[in-house]
Order: sequence, then structure tokens, then C-alpha cells
Amino acid sequence: MSVSDSIQQAIEYVNANAGRFVDELFDLLRIPSISAQPDHAGDVRAAATWVANRCRAAGLTAEVVETKGHPAVIAEGAQAPGRPTILVYGHYDVQPEGELALWNTGPFEPVIDDGKIVCRGSADDKGQAFCAILAAEAWMKTVGSLPINLKFCLEGEEEVGSKHLDELIRAHRDRLACDYVLIHDTAQFDEGVPAVTTATRGLVYKEVIVRGPKKDLHSGSFGGCIANPANVLARMIAALHDDNGRITIPGFYDDVVEMSAEEVEMMNSLPHSDAALLAELGSPKTWGEAGYSTLYRRWARPTLDVNGIYGGYMKEGSSTIIPAFAGAKISMRLVANQRSEYISRAFDEAIRSIAPDTVKVEILDHACCDAYLADVTSAGMQASRRAVEAGFGKAPVLIREGGSLPILPLLKDVLGADSLMLGYCLPTANIHSPNEFMHVRDFEAGIRSTTALLGMMAEA
Amino acid sequence: MSVSDSIQQAIEYVNANAGRFVDELFDLLRIPSISAQPDHAGDVRAAATWVANRCRAAGLTAEVVETKGHPAVIAEGAQAPGRPTILVYGHYDVQPEGELALWNTGPFEPVIDDGKIVCRGSADDKGQAFCAILAAEAWMKTVGSLPINLKFCLEGEEEVGSKHLDELIRAHRDRLACDYVLIHDTAQFDEGVPAVTTATRGLVYKEVIVRGPKKDLHSGSFGGCIANPANVLARMIAALHDDNGRITIPGFYDDVVEMSAEEVEMMNSLPHSDAALLAELGSPKTWGEAGYSTLYRRWARPTLDVNGIYGGYMKEGSSTIIPAFAGAKISMRLVANQRSEYISRAFDEAIRSIAPDTVKVEILDHACCDAYLADVTSAGMQASRRAVEAGFGKAPVLIREGGSLPILPLLKDVLGADSLMLGYCLPTANIHSPNEFMHVRDFEAGIRSTTALLGMMAEA
Repeated sequence: MSVSDSIQQAIEYVNANAGRFVDELFDLLRIPSISAQPDHAGDVRAAATWVANRCRAAGLTAEVVETKGHPAVIAEGAQAPGRPTILVYGHYDVQPEGELALWNTGPFEPVIDDGKIVCRGSADDKGQAFCAILAAEAWMKTVGSLPINLKFCLEGEEEVGSKHLDELIRAHRDRLACDYVLIHDTAQFDEGVPAVTTATRGLVYKEVIVRGPKKDLHSGSFGGCIANPANVLARMIAALHDDNGRITIPGFYDDVVEMSAEEVEMMNSLPHSDAALLAELGSPKTWGEAGYSTLYRRWARPTLDVNGIYGGYMKEGSSTIIPAFAGAKISMRLVANQRSEYISRAFDEAIRSIAPDTVKVEILDHACCDAYLADVTSAGMQASRRAVEAGFGKAPVLIREGGSLPILPLLKDVLGADSLMLGYCLPTANIHSPNEFMHVRDFEAGIRSTTALLGMMAEA
Repeated sequence: MSVSDSIQQAIEYVNANAGRFVDELFDLLRIPSISAQPDHAGDVRAAATWVANRCRAAGLTAEVVETKGHPAVIAEGAQAPGRPTILVYGHYDVQPEGELALWNTGPFEPVIDDGKIVCRGSADDKGQAFCAILAAEAWMKTVGSLPINLKFCLEGEEEVGSKHLDELIRAHRDRLACDYVLIHDTAQFDEGVPAVTTATRGLVYKEVIVRGPKKDLHSGSFGGCIANPANVLARMIAALHDDNGRITIPGFYDDVVEMSAEEVEMMNSLPHSDAALLAELGSPKTWGEAGYSTLYRRWARPTLDVNGIYGGYMKEGSSTIIPAFAGAKISMRLVANQRSEYISRAFDEAIRSIAPDTVKVEILDHACCDAYLADVTSAGMQASRRAVEAGFGKAPVLIREGGSLPILPLLKDVLGADSLMLGYCLPTANIHSPNEFMHVRDFEAGIRSTTALLGMMAEA
């Protein structure tokens, strides 16, 4: 039987069993595996056990692997000598439910509403990660074997910064060796516009604390006589951008790779409307680095944002003090080929150089990870595009992700493997928000896509 | 009995009862009458009641007078026909406690530590305002009558901009008619350098709120695509000063009166050291408008300070959001002859003109009052200098106050009365800061000074 016939057979199995797959996903979604909350540690473990058992039922070997935090699951299919190896990365921990009153139904009581599976984790990432397990099952229950070497590394700490993943990957480096990493943790571009994601932005997250007097002072007695840390902090933040929205940190843009003309052309052909975006977000106008479109800015330009700022009297009303200190949480999204360690140092140096000697400045580090940019010409990427077309019935567009996935540069570094990002949920899926959802049709199309990918990779 | 004998007798009463006066002050200090915080409204009222009762115990008639906000207390002694009239102004509301961890003892649990009464309100203004009530008592319990006409107007909204004082004063214009206003809400110049204050700065207090998206957004998905309200706010604050520390608001300095050569000379002869100031405050360096000394900046130059700034994620750790809004509490200290209403409008116009159209900006008004500059040659001012010498045993210096007392321009306007500012605490009293204090010895010297002043004014 040809590979394409095998793919067809496996996809038919997916279509025939789709109802059962949704029911099974509901079982997983009902486990409130909130990794951020210690009292849900047992639920994260229960989700790991569920996932390991489901991998076994799909015909894989699976193991719950302990870490210093929540456990992970490592699974694999029988060896397919001479064939490429794909490592599926995903996670079964979820975000806290957030504001309960904003949920239309229980955050851990999955329902189907207007064709959508509504539940915390439906999109991020239980629903999507499950697609890969089911794709393996489709091959095992039809062809009886996998067309490639398939491995899984599914974790329970993604929503708390994958604290122990680095250690886990390094400890199991040989066992996890692969040609490509497959990740179902991004999204389509829009309704009816399936996508393959080719890049994520990196992240350098700092906190700058400006200290002046050793305690809050009366602004009448001392105003205008000593530097005010909040005013100084504001001046320092302001100095980090020029009037064109460009970041002024020396060397910041040195390594930035522009998008190719072809990628820009594809981007410009996408159905994007600034007016629609503004209507959705509520901002009066777009803003960003001069000379780039909104999508370009999101996908391929580095940024610097204040994520939080504090100092002095922050409650209702007024208090006439000069604050003893003021601080700002400042993060930068990086793009290929900026090096996060270099940008981290450049930021610190810029801050030190603009800090006046009328105050003391402290800088804290909160996060540091590189951007990721896939080789869109790789065999794996070509197969991915054909697989999504097979699953969704429509050729995917190539898009970039504005957020960060530290796992990508990590796996590139430790395993030398490129990542394939096939996201099946919608960008409006309310991940991290109330009423998270994934369309049943996208869940099914996703399983079909991954099923097709396994076969297509055999010939890639 | 001569006036000077009567003064002596009253002062002896003060000395004999000083211990009891401190105990009574403690009772008042224990009431957390924070006018800025709505849940302390009952405490402000309790302080008003306490003060009215204490006035009655001193031999005055007293009334708690309602306003649209916190109540005030109006009290007076028996009429002394043909004698001058003094209206004592003070306040029994206090600043919020600020950062609790920095207090060595509870902010509302008065203690005596190394000769200092430590408690929020000990200096600003409960401890000082109480001196005048006790001076009245000293006359009533010794001579049996007051040497002049004495009135009190004590309020509970000074720390929130005396919002309803204007209305109160105007409503009781006849009842409060006076020749001089006496205010114990300033400070000595330094340890062992008692002072009479001749000027206060005005205050315009604003809150600028910058709004962007309707809710917090993911900084990866939207960073660099829409304006970040915290970054915009920082740029706007930064734009309010130039590199010489001058305020850039158009017209801001138009009406500023420089100090006379004589006053500058007296100022320069005072024992002031920038190094000592910095050692005390903990700031690494002085800062201010180029071309002026520290004392000049404090006394006679207008300023602009951020008193508080807030927005986005302000807790421990990190969160990758673009805040929906960010705000800053910004106040300006004004000097004679700046007009606060004019500066208020000029600030708003400046903010509107520098606000980009990528955000919406809201401006709240928290306070607006003029500066005050006294006639140093008046009879009241001469008597004040002699009274402080009598109370402290040392001739006072003439100084200016960097803080604001809105009551001064208001009373000048409504009652036509000049103000006498006799401040008894130290300038280092930590007012508006943790561990606010007033020396027991200064509290006692203050009561003696006011006691003397009542007698000296009878002959003024």
C-alpha cells in the first residue's frame, strides 16, 4: 500500500472515531491541572497519568517521568529504522480559571456550545496536544505501525515557565533525539485561514528599580531639591524609545533579520484589518515602529514594553510625597537573530548609562529566552504545509507568533532539532481567559493534519 | 497684674502640666484619622469630637461643624472687647501611614523614644495644633480669661486638599473674623534654630490617567502594535521637565517673584549643608532647577513631582501584559505670585498637547491653592518673633516653607487677615513619612510660645 493510501486509511479512522475522541478529550479536560496552584498538584499528576495511559491505549509505550516539580510524560512508538524522527512537545497543565463570574459554564466542565468545545485547556494545550496522540492511534489501528519514529515529551509546567524542562530534556537527551520537534500550541491565522507558524519572538524581562531618598518624603519640604525616583524612572523609560518608536538601546537592532520579500508578500495578502483590530482591542489607534505594518511589527520586529509600573502613593485620592523608590517591569520581545543574553546585557548597560547620579538603580532579571525562526524550506516545513492542507482542506498560510516559546530555542540548542508549529485552534480561542474554546471541526481537522503529517514525513 | 506677669504665670502652668498634656496628645494620636481613605471617615469624625471636647475642657465653647466631607471644629473663648482677634487654624486629619514595614512602632501607637513623641500626626498637625488649645487653657486656668479674642477653626481635610474649607470659611465669615490667623503647621529651621515662617508654596495636584486597550493584553501578541499606556505616560512625564530641571509647561514661570537680595542674604547666613541634608535623606546627590541653591529651590522656586505612579502588573515576579491603563499622581508646588487656577489650566493644556492620539487621557483634579507671602513688618509678625523667643529661649530666624497651606491665601481673601506661622516641630520630623515625630521639649516650648503670643498680642 502506498503512503498516500495509508494516510487516507488513517484519516478515515479519525473521521469514523471523531465523536469518541471528543468524549475522551472531555475526560482529560475535566481534570483541573492548574500548575500554578499548589493545591492542584494532584490534578497535574492525574493529568500526566491520564495522558500516559492514553498513549499506551494508542499503541505507544509511555512513562510518567518525575521532575523537581510536576511530572512529565515521555512516550514513543515502535522504532521505524531509516525513517525520520519526530518529537511531539505539548503540555497538559493549564492556566488558572481566572475570574469565575466571566465563564458561561464551569471552567472544568467541558460542553459543546455552537460547535465549540468550551473548557479551560481545550485549546491551550490539552485539545491540541491530544491530536498528536490520536494521530498515532489512527496509524496503529489501521496500518498497524507508525510510518516514522515518533516520540512524545509532554509536560505539566508550561504555564509556570517550564521550570524543570531544561533539566529534563538534558537528562533524556538521547532518548529524545529527533529530526524535528512538532508543537501544537499555536493557532490558525483566522477563521477559515489555517496556518503553519514559522517563528516566535524571544523575551528578555527586567525590573528596573530607581531609589532616591531612604524613605518617602514630603513633596513640599523636599520637592525640587532632590531627584524624584518616579520622575527619574519616567525619564529613563521615555529615553528607551525615540520619536519613531525605535528602541534606543545601543546595538539593539544589530542582529535583527528582516522578513524576506516573499514572506512580506504573503503577509500582506492575509485578511488583516487595523480597524477591526482596534475595534476588538479598544485602543484608539495603532502604534509601533515607523515603517512597518501591524502584522510586521507583531511578527518580526522587536519591542520594549512596560508591563507594570509602581511607586509612591497608588491608592485613591492624593498624598504629597516624593517616593523613596519607583520601579518598572520592562520586557523586550526579540526576533531572529537577536541573542537574548546580549540584549539583556545591552539593556543593563543602557539603563546604567542613562541613570543620573542623583539616584541609585537596581535591575532584576525575570526571563531571558531567544526568538525562534524556522527554515521554511526544510523538508519538515514542506510536509507540514501539505499536511495541514490535507487536514483542513485548504492550504495554510505561513505566519509568525508574537509571543515566546522558550522550548524552541532550547530544543534547537540541546537536540539540534528544528520545530514545526502546527496550531489548530483559533487566535480568538480565549487562551488564558474565561470561556477558552476549540471548535470541534478544528479539533478533528487537527487530528487529520497530524495524521497526514506522520505519513508525509516518511517520504520527506 | 501686668501682661508680662500674666504670661509668666500661664507659662508656669504649662510647665507644671506638661506631662499630662503629652498623655492627652497620645489619646488624640491614637485615632487613625486618615482623611484620604474613606474607611477612616469615622476616625476623622472621632478626632473632631475629641478636639471639640478638649477645647471645652480648656474653657472654650466648641462646636463640631458639618461640611460636605469630614467635619470641622469651630471654637472660641469669651470676648475680650477692644483687643485684637486671633483665629487659630489647624487640622486633626493625618496622612496615610505609608509603608508599614518602615515604622519602628505602630503608626497610630504613640510612644516616647529618646525624647521624641513618635506617631503619625505627632508633628503634622495634631501635636502642634494642640499647643494652641493648651495655651488657651493656661490662660483660662491661671488668669481666668484670655488676653485677646481667640477663635479656632480646626479641620479634618487638610491632607486631602481642604476640599470644603472654602465653603466653611465663607459660611462662617463673620464668626471667624479676625486680625491675624495663627498657624502651627510649619517647622523650626533646624535643631536649636527656632523659626517664624513667612511664606508657603501653593499646590496644584493632578492625576493623569492614560488609557489604551479596554483590557490588559498579551505583550507577545500585541506588543509593538498598539501604544502601551505605561510607556506613553512615562514619555509624557519626562516631557514636563527640560534637561536643566525647568518645567516645560508654557507660561509656568511667568508670574514667579524672585526673593529679595536681603532675604537671600539672610537665607545664605543660615546653617545649611547639602552634604548633611543628603546624609539625612539618603539621596546620593541634590537635584533641582539649575542656577538656584537648595534652600532657594525649596523656598521660592516652583516644582513638579510625581507623587505616585501605577499601572499593569505591580506584584512580585513578572506578567507579560500590556496594561489597559497607567496613571500618575503629579503635583506642582507654586510660589508667589503664580496663580494656581492659571497653572492648573496650563498643566491640563500641556498634557493634552503632549498626549499622543494613540491613547485616551483623563486628568483628575486633587488640589489647587495659591502660595502665600507674609508682610514681615506687621505687628503680629513682630509679636510672633518675641513669643517664640520667650517659648524657646532663643530668637527665631525668618524662613519660608516649601509645603503648602491653602488656608493662608483663602483667609487672606475671605477674612482679609494675614497669617502668622509659628512652627514648633523639626524639619526632619518625618511628616508624611514613617516614624513621624515631635520632640517632647519642642511640644512644651511650643505651648509656651503660643501662651506668650496670646499675651503679647494684647499689647501689639
